[in-house]
Amino acid sequence: MSSTSEIDALIDLMARLPGLGPRSARRAVLHLIRQRGRLLQPLAGAMAEVAEKARECLNCGNVGTSDICDICTDETRANGQICVVEDVADLWAMERGGAFRGRYHVLGGTLSALDAVGPEDLRIPKLMDRVTAETISEVILALNATVDGQTTAHYIADRLESRVALSSLAQGVPIGGELDYLDDGTISAALSARKRL
Amino acid sequence: MSSTSEIDALIDLMARLPGLGPRSARRAVLHLIRQRGRLLQPLAGAMAEVAEKARECLNCGNVGTSDICDICTDETRANGQICVVEDVADLWAMERGGAFRGRYHVLGGTLSALDAVGPEDLRIPKLMDRVTAETISEVILALNATVDGQTTAHYIADRLESRVALSSLAQGVPIGGELDYLDDGTISAALSARKRL
Ligand SMILES: [Zn+2]
Ligand SMILES: [Zn+2]
Repeated sequence: MSSTSEIDALIDLMARLPGLGPRSARRAVLHLIRQRGRLLQPLAGAMAEVAEKARECLNCGNVGTSDICDICTDETRANGQICVVEDVADLWAMERGGAFRGRYHVLGGTLSALDAVGPEDLRIPKLMDRVTAETISEVILALNATVDGQTTAHYIADRLESRVALSSLAQGVPIGGELDYLDDGTISAALSARKRL
Repeated sequence: MSSTSEIDALIDLMARLPGLGPRSARRAVLHLIRQRGRLLQPLAGAMAEVAEKARECLNCGNVGTSDICDICTDETRANGQICVVEDVADLWAMERGGAFRGRYHVLGGTLSALDAVGPEDLRIPKLMDRVTAETISEVILALNATVDGQTTAHYIADRLESRVALSSLAQGVPIGGELDYLDDGTISAALSARKRL
């Protein structure tokens, strides 16, 4: 197809990124070659570094570059509140909102009967452990307003309601909406107006 | 914003790729971290290799990994026909069609009064040199059906018509259409039905 095997190999790998197909991968690779010093070399270096260092936080499931992530070790953040999210993209969306200064717990997905995802396939047992081990006053269920997200929220709420105060993001999250698509102000408003379960 | 500086740096670089904004860059980076061994590491390696090796062919302007590209050195391809294209993406589109087995010349853009792009800003002098130095029977002007593309085709045709047979891609190229967006069959048909100028 294109000129040489190294360039073809790069195009094939780029085409496997979400949001890029073969055509946009070819465009991206030509752009990278034209911007070799300003973009291609730094990108190769940044990827190698992240490939070497990135890991999941053993405590909360966030991605970072050490066994316990920056948020879990940040002494300026409040203990006692855990915000439960489906995935790291949702944690990042919450952080962009900037309204939450507690800790997180990333489930790594939602319960799904269809896909045979049970509690032990997610970080739900670890969440139960944290509620036991840490002094937690409130668990905020910031799951997506989808059927699977709400099923998962109810499952967790059932198991924690006798042990800790529970709340969920309230006003501002549209029906069927996903956190990562919302603007920062909407997330902040939904957090402030969270309702007790 | 997100968890650590290495990951943030990678997101910022990815967001500079054409077709990816900040949000899709974040998604892509999470995908890369999850697919560390199967995608992130190979991609880092492929980028480093292309960053080191990629260069423009001194003869035709194609990108490759040596001073003279694979197409220029391919002994199974016919000499005597040069297909002139605007950029490397168009050369790749022609190659996907598979109908052309001659040589190429990549201009690196089009003439543009508005953007002050003159012949010496493109690989037009080198094209004139090749027509003199090589035994050329035909120059096929495969430029995009845009105003600037056709202006450039006419400029080249004016300077070559006394020296060599000229043709352009004909049937199948829609008005205002760009080669890289066309399906392979359309490009083949347009090449077969090319008309003498
Ligand atoms: Zn953590
Ligand atoms: Zn060449």
